[in-house]
Amino acid sequence: MRVYNFAAGPSMLPLEVLEEAQRSLTDYNNSGMSIMECTHRGKVYEPVHSECISLIKELMGISDEYEVLLLQGGASTQFDAVPLNLMKTGKADYAVTGNFSSKAYKEAKKYGDARLAGSSEDKNFTYIPTQSELKFSDDADYFHYTANNTIFGSKWGYIPQTSAPLVCDMSSNIMSEVVDVNKFGLIYAGAQKNLGPAGVTLVIVRKDLIGNQMEICPTMLKYSIHAKNNSLYNTPPTFAIYMMMLNLRRVKALGGIVEMEKVNKAKAQLLYDFLDNSTFYTNPVRKDSRSIMNVTFTTPNADLDDACVKGATAAGLCNLKGHRLVGGMRASIYNSMPTEGVQALVDFLAKFEQANK
Amino acid sequence: MRVYNFAAGPSMLPLEVLEEAQRSLTDYNNSGMSIMECTHRGKVYEPVHSECISLIKELMGISDEYEVLLLQGGASTQFDAVPLNLMKTGKADYAVTGNFSSKAYKEAKKYGDARLAGSSEDKNFTYIPTQSELKFSDDADYFHYTANNTIFGSKWGYIPQTSAPLVCDMSSNIMSEVVDVNKFGLIYAGAQKNLGPAGVTLVIVRKDLIGNQMEICPTMLKYSIHAKNNSLYNTPPTFAIYMMMLNLRRVKALGGIVEMEKVNKAKAQLLYDFLDNSTFYTNPVRKDSRSIMNVTFTTPNADLDDACVKGATAAGLCNLKGHRLVGGMRASIYNSMPTEGVQALVDFLAKFEQANK
Repeated sequence: MRVYNFAAGPSMLPLEVLEEAQRSLTDYNNSGMSIMECTHRGKVYEPVHSECISLIKELMGISDEYEVLLLQGGASTQFDAVPLNLMKTGKADYAVTGNFSSKAYKEAKKYGDARLAGSSEDKNFTYIPTQSELKFSDDADYFHYTANNTIFGSKWGYIPQTSAPLVCDMSSNIMSEVVDVNKFGLIYAGAQKNLGPAGVTLVIVRKDLIGNQMEICPTMLKYSIHAKNNSLYNTPPTFAIYMMMLNLRRVKALGGIVEMEKVNKAKAQLLYDFLDNSTFYTNPVRKDSRSIMNVTFTTPNADLDDACVKGATAAGLCNLKGHRLVGGMRASIYNSMPTEGVQALVDFLAKFEQANK
Repeated sequence: MRVYNFAAGPSMLPLEVLEEAQRSLTDYNNSGMSIMECTHRGKVYEPVHSECISLIKELMGISDEYEVLLLQGGASTQFDAVPLNLMKTGKADYAVTGNFSSKAYKEAKKYGDARLAGSSEDKNFTYIPTQSELKFSDDADYFHYTANNTIFGSKWGYIPQTSAPLVCDMSSNIMSEVVDVNKFGLIYAGAQKNLGPAGVTLVIVRKDLIGNQMEICPTMLKYSIHAKNNSLYNTPPTFAIYMMMLNLRRVKALGGIVEMEKVNKAKAQLLYDFLDNSTFYTNPVRKDSRSIMNVTFTTPNADLDDACVKGATAAGLCNLKGHRLVGGMRASIYNSMPTEGVQALVDFLAKFEQANK
């Protein structure tokens, strides 16, 4: 029996997407091969690669001023690739609002003058600084921030304004809401939350920002190389790209990101409304900074937290344990989590509250 | 109907491995999830990760003096990671015997004094230099070579001897023959030829060589980070690792690398004997340097080459077109290619010769 999987990533994929992959796993499109056996330079795989990139462009409304790259190494590799490619005068601004933005900031300092434009570390990352709280340099090559903080369950409720190109890690909320890509210089995201399985990383980069990489930049981290080769400079993670393509076909069929946003907001509201109306559960994040992808909460004590996670697992609501930096529970409710899953969680939490308060 | 796929990579996987993955694609081990939906820090995925690493150690006879890492980015990323981690005094020797070794040499020059210890470029990479033809430095931090040249169909018939640690790209022949890992400082290989699907890269590195990385080394390229975190520093390509595990279970069940070597040598001999006995087909590689994984050959002219590739495809013998740098045909006959596939190819080639000579 399939469960509702609230893991922060890798995470749920739609059953129909898995079933389609399953059907053709030993013979894709009458090629006599699995898609994962196909050469990346052949007629069978090429349409998959192209369609995946086209779907990303179409769904996100990406103009021809941008390159869409399918890379490897996760967002963690982009923490270095971004400064190596974009820090052309050696200066950049960073906002630190969680674990991953902190890592990105630390990596950037290896390559130049990375400056702290804002931080929410003073309150254990339970909020996002407001526009007026951010202190931008006037000579930064870019400003980097992390749109959604998977671990802490917070997100930027606005797109920050500054004169430098915006660079945004959207790993845990890409395609969850409509975003105007034109406001960004570069967007990147590991696939394993909202796009597909682990093993492929999406980079959307404005063409005029490509080509200024430092001498020491490893070739595989150069956007120019991957742009020139349509992400086929070396063997791409073909199966992960295929799964992403299947998943994005479904997103399109369901009505695109407009529809995803509608459903995601309703799912998050369902859960937050329940938590807000409860005196048993607490969500630590400031209301204007709440994530609609990762909802963190606690019961009155750690023992009850453990019991809650265990009881939920037994009820087919899996992977609700919060990150070790935060404790408590975390429900990751990405695009592939159906409303029914969130409703089942709310029902379980209500029963657990009644039994334990 | 399944075909025989002679692609250089990604390449054939055993049907029973694909079928096992297929059966559990929507529900792995009664977890209610696909293995690709499982968090990399959970009880469902962890045994897969551990078993994959254990199987590599067991099959290759790797001692505790080595770390076995499962990374991303392909061999191309290792072209930079190797010098960034191992060039501690800034000097290294390289042998250039094909396209990928040439790329590795070029990348290394960005980080220090990479020296040419030997090359076979003078004869279009149709041979491997002998031990006595190699000129080693006496102060190199390591010597790098590419064990098997996928594009040109050549391989090192011996393990070179020098005082510096040996670093070897075994992407296209790893686990094809028994190799004494203790002779090496570092071995790396993209998975998509002999190990599993594309998207995971194996690195086997002697522990004493870890930890001397340059300041400018991106964190994701540091062996120390991945060794310390058991290749779970960030989200690994979980599904690719799972497929590799299934494939290696089969290698073990079949008798391990000893058996693979026996079968691989017999497959290669079958094809080379046929080519050598033919006056129609030509293999350009010097006999002592022939690959047992990638067999390159031509007919008397390019038109016949094209006709041969087309005819073979129609007969279910796919992806025989040679690399654009070489032309002609190339049959990649990795571990997963059954003897029957090579026999079918020989039968086809014999008929094609009769019809066209």
